[in-house]
Amino acid sequence: MDRLEELLHKTQEKSIRISVIGLGRVGLPLASVLASKGFKVNGIDVNTDTIESIKNSKCPFYDPSLQDNLEETVKSGNLTVGTKMESNFNVLFLSVGTPKTEGNTVDYSQLFNALNEIVKADILGKLIILRSTLPPKTTEDVIIPFLEDKSSLRCGKDFGLAVCPERILEGKAIRELNQLPEIIGGVNEICNNIVKSIFQEINPDKEFVITSPTGAELTKLFTNIYRYIGFALANELAIWSEMYGVDATEVIKGANYNYERCNIPIPGFAGGPCLSKDGTFLDNNTTFSSIVSTAWKLNESIPQHVINSIKKNIGNLYNKKIAVLGLSFKSGSDDLRNSPSLKLVGILKTTGAKVIVHDPYVKDTISLKQALENSEVVIIATNHKEFQNIKEEINQSKPKLIYDVWSMYESKDYPSLEYHRFGDGSL
Amino acid sequence: MDRLEELLHKTQEKSIRISVIGLGRVGLPLASVLASKGFKVNGIDVNTDTIESIKNSKCPFYDPSLQDNLEETVKSGNLTVGTKMESNFNVLFLSVGTPKTEGNTVDYSQLFNALNEIVKADILGKLIILRSTLPPKTTEDVIIPFLEDKSSLRCGKDFGLAVCPERILEGKAIRELNQLPEIIGGVNEICNNIVKSIFQEINPDKEFVITSPTGAELTKLFTNIYRYIGFALANELAIWSEMYGVDATEVIKGANYNYERCNIPIPGFAGGPCLSKDGTFLDNNTTFSSIVSTAWKLNESIPQHVINSIKKNIGNLYNKKIAVLGLSFKSGSDDLRNSPSLKLVGILKTTGAKVIVHDPYVKDTISLKQALENSEVVIIATNHKEFQNIKEEINQSKPKLIYDVWSMYESKDYPSLEYHRFGDGSL
Repeated sequence: MDRLEELLHKTQEKSIRISVIGLGRVGLPLASVLASKGFKVNGIDVNTDTIESIKNSKCPFYDPSLQDNLEETVKSGNLTVGTKMESNFNVLFLSVGTPKTEGNTVDYSQLFNALNEIVKADILGKLIILRSTLPPKTTEDVIIPFLEDKSSLRCGKDFGLAVCPERILEGKAIRELNQLPEIIGGVNEICNNIVKSIFQEINPDKEFVITSPTGAELTKLFTNIYRYIGFALANELAIWSEMYGVDATEVIKGANYNYERCNIPIPGFAGGPCLSKDGTFLDNNTTFSSIVSTAWKLNESIPQHVINSIKKNIGNLYNKKIAVLGLSFKSGSDDLRNSPSLKLVGILKTTGAKVIVHDPYVKDTISLKQALENSEVVIIATNHKEFQNIKEEINQSKPKLIYDVWSMYESKDYPSLEYHRFGDGSL
Repeated sequence: MDRLEELLHKTQEKSIRISVIGLGRVGLPLASVLASKGFKVNGIDVNTDTIESIKNSKCPFYDPSLQDNLEETVKSGNLTVGTKMESNFNVLFLSVGTPKTEGNTVDYSQLFNALNEIVKADILGKLIILRSTLPPKTTEDVIIPFLEDKSSLRCGKDFGLAVCPERILEGKAIRELNQLPEIIGGVNEICNNIVKSIFQEINPDKEFVITSPTGAELTKLFTNIYRYIGFALANELAIWSEMYGVDATEVIKGANYNYERCNIPIPGFAGGPCLSKDGTFLDNNTTFSSIVSTAWKLNESIPQHVINSIKKNIGNLYNKKIAVLGLSFKSGSDDLRNSPSLKLVGILKTTGAKVIVHDPYVKDTISLKQALENSEVVIIATNHKEFQNIKEEINQSKPKLIYDVWSMYESKDYPSLEYHRFGDGSL
């Protein structure tokens, strides 16, 4: 029997060992869920803090549902973790980061560090599943030639390979791993079938979209670009609304209301480690301005625009105490990568303002009470649900100005204060 | 009793006379539907052909459901039409065109011709409802001052005014007039209530979004811009897919499949009288490249891109016979305004090609059979449903190349011919 057919049988019998390299927000939920379904899973990460944390059954980032799952799988012994590759795996998920360099090109260093370890571990008869977000053709033009070259084995015959990008929402990993259709771009049918067989253990009714490796890379990028453009458009409409003195959020809600052809997001910061990066993986291929690059320019300018608006109202920010509420890039998350709120704080500091940050999800930020005390400006910069119920506290602290980036409140919530929201046309 | 309150009572008793100025694809369905609900409606249009056609119960453009409605309302006498304003109306809908000039600014000529007639007819105690698409602030900064100045009456007191933009799909006017929520931006509550009362005669359960005049103008523009950007993004993704030799339509279908955060349209031509224009009403306010202007540039370039792709495959087009299937800007329509297919034909002619056009909805185009005969290239340029079932005819005519702008077919439908679709990465 062919080696990969053998692997398929072993997978169907659930007698495979799975490795997951990269235990971040993509890899760890996957490793833990697979372990909870009875697979023997070994997770690898170069970060010793991450490994220590997991060994102590503690999720290294904020995700309550994953936390419960992790406690169970570490206790059961199905999930083991370490900093070194073990060679006794049958299937390996690669979920390391592929961030942008400062020059906006892709940084493959984590990817190739991992691939180097993988070939050392011997890949004969094994399946490599690429779970990271990759620029198109990375698999066909770089990863497969690399693996074949270093191992002297043939991809699709001696070892298997599939691109299977994650598309989960941060903080909702457990639910979404169960529900979302999986994109599978294997080098051949047998690879696709092994991947299917693994995910069917998570959910027997799991749906699949079968494509090529490059098709799978593009599917992931298209998904995120679509979302990013939507947020950028909302922000562009907010900027225009300001020119006309009309509240963009109200107009958008009206435009969407029971009108199925319209689904514009609410204006706000748009960034994070995925959305603001993935578009460049395609845009880098283009010599002229694309919609993606125009959207990127716009979204990246919103923190400065917020500061400009605040200055219009209260003037010079030098020595003024400013409370920034929320530092992470999205609600309910502690993830600071490419966070527009972090950028806002950085620019604010260049104005000479005294910037104080409170974020209930981010360690080393101060309490809400301390942040509000004597602050002249309060900026709601992340739409954490905790910020939906703090109008009493803000009203009591009597700032000169409240700037609500996310339209979480309305003017009438602050009857005796100066309240503005992004895109409301009042500044 | 206040004059506008009186008008509200008359409206509720259905004893008002309604005028509709502009009997195009927006005004005529509205006039006919209101007449079918028992209102006495007088329709006005400067185009004598339009008036003659309606008098003969014939819809001047393609809309089968409107055709039936029109026959009934003309016969009943509830709908009368003419080229001259009558002054005995109580409520007037203004639904004239507001096209772009060649310099991309708005052309108000139809609007002001109509407003001049309206003030001559005396507007005391009457309500003017603006149904046309307007650049933001047109109502507050131009129309209201104009009407007050010319009539020496006060808006909101002596006469009423509301912005109530249409958002129907061409060809589906009757159904959508019944179903869609109406945006109402009246100058005061009484005006809003009169408009509501009229639309509740069309559907007692009609829903409303109440806003300001400028809010209503923006709501319409936001709706169309959102759709236009979606089509442009699909086209940008198609261009990128071509660089990687991957079929964009397949990837987009995969990305959308049971993934609620993704809803990318299929690539194709994007134009028409509304979508390609409405964005400029906001973009004209901006000195730098906006997402809207970038999207416009992209969508407007697709016809040239199609021709470039065809040339890559078969070379110089000089003297080659090319059949273009579909001339209107969208499926099931005879509307040629800002049609990318029309632009395609124009550019093709500059190449020296012999261009033959077939469109089942457009008069003065030739038959499918004649178009296909001896054509070296067949371009499916509009996604008319009639084109879903013509593969036999195309296969028999044996063109050297089929170019499918709308991904209506697949390669396997043309087993012995050269078939390419926009964004499939094969050219």
